Amino acid sequence: MRYLIYFSYDGRNFNGYQKQPGKRTIELELEDAISKINNKPTKVYGSGRTDSKVHALSQTAHFNLEVEITLDKLKRAINTFLPNDIHIIKVIKVRDNFNARFDVKKKIYQYYINCGEYNPLERDYVYQYCRRLNIDKINEALKYFVGKHDFSSFVSNEAKKESYIRTIYSASLVFKKNKLIFTFIGNGFMKYQVRYMVGTLIKVGEEKIDSSIIKEMLLDDKYNNLVSIVRPEGLYLKEVKY
Amino acid sequence: MRYLIYFSYDGRNFNGYQKQPGKRTIELELEDAISKINNKPTKVYGSGRTDSKVHALSQTAHFNLEVEITLDKLKRAINTFLPNDIHIIKVIKVRDNFNARFDVKKKIYQYYINCGEYNPLERDYVYQYCRRLNIDKINEALKYFVGKHDFSSFVSNEAKKESYIRTIYSASLVFKKNKLIFTFIGNGFMKYQVRYMVGTLIKVGEEKIDSSIIKEMLLDDKYNNLVSIVRPEGLYLKEVKY
Repeated sequence: MRYLIYFSYDGRNFNGYQKQPGKRTIELELEDAISKINNKPTKVYGSGRTDSKVHALSQTAHFNLEVEITLDKLKRAINTFLPNDIHIIKVIKVRDNFNARFDVKKKIYQYYINCGEYNPLERDYVYQYCRRLNIDKINEALKYFVGKHDFSSFVSNEAKKESYIRTIYSASLVFKKNKLIFTFIGNGFMKYQVRYMVGTLIKVGEEKIDSSIIKEMLLDDKYNNLVSIVRPEGLYLKEVKY
Repeated sequence: MRYLIYFSYDGRNFNGYQKQPGKRTIELELEDAISKINNKPTKVYGSGRTDSKVHALSQTAHFNLEVEITLDKLKRAINTFLPNDIHIIKVIKVRDNFNARFDVKKKIYQYYINCGEYNPLERDYVYQYCRRLNIDKINEALKYFVGKHDFSSFVSNEAKKESYIRTIYSASLVFKKNKLIFTFIGNGFMKYQVRYMVGTLIKVGEEKIDSSIIKEMLLDDKYNNLVSIVRPEGLYLKEVKY
């Protein structure tokens, strides 16, 4: 039987999603917990990776299980074996050829920025920028991201891909109580892509670069030197849709 | 010159406010930072203590400084020397006999409880109770706390006081998105008092004890065995008023 899990995690004490020798990662913790239930080493296939310190409100992964167990009991069993910074929200059965990564329709990411007084309670959860930004300029720039574009200006050098073309269905910004919340809905995001987009939008908001440059960056990579990355702790994988 | 500071802290990695040998406390960090500015060991007098893991949105303390410095520079200087889990929000000058503890008019505490799905991102900031409570019963019980009462049923054994009489001006409860937020405004609160009040209110919400017992507990300490304490991480010192 193949199962799909929806889970949240606090990225604070993780070296990201993907397994790495000698490091604490989400993939490692999930496989440890699920292998105990399955009584044998069990691979867990995530919808994608998140970087070190990045959070997830609802990440997904699939795995095969040979033991008979109800969905409710399975959820409770995995949560029992997981540490307190990862939590299984929901477990569903899926068809045998379902793939948590390749069957993704949409992913939703959010990025939180505090433009007000530094808040020590949020330091691992909201980027403490603590200065003003020109919100109108950011909104002008933000709309250029919507659509099908080549995002090669906005990815890590590590992210060697066959294609850098991705579609962003929606890019929005809410400004409430000195807090900026960006929401990006797309068919997929590459390594550091959201952090590069937000980092560059901050430069627009600081009036260091013009909003229209975003449009140019999506057409040509000659502006790569103007791109900027933002810290990981404000980033949330909010939802994965199938 | 005497100064009053307003500051916030994340209680997660502190053994509470008060100095203790070999332990990391808020008082220790404040005195270390301010002593550096004053070029000599400087005592900092807090409005009161908070327990290990308890947070503050706006705690206060006073101290004397012999160096000449503007309020804005003083704020920045202290923040420079403080670790990233304490932050000075505001500095004001006060009269020479002002006392951050004895001049308090009102203190406001809040307690956060999550009655919904466990949220790993909030585990150090909101009590993850994750079950339903009878909110009507809690509201019935809550009103008994308002007024001038002997709170000896709701304090720690450690809190040996001449008088356990305190006044609560207001006790309110908001239930929003599966989250309970208690707000208590009073002239002062003793060690563990808010945590005992909330812990006992949870028992009322669980229908383990009747709401009217709160009234009895405030008249007589024979019900002490029914009192219950709640975890520290959901508790916030929200404001100190003079």
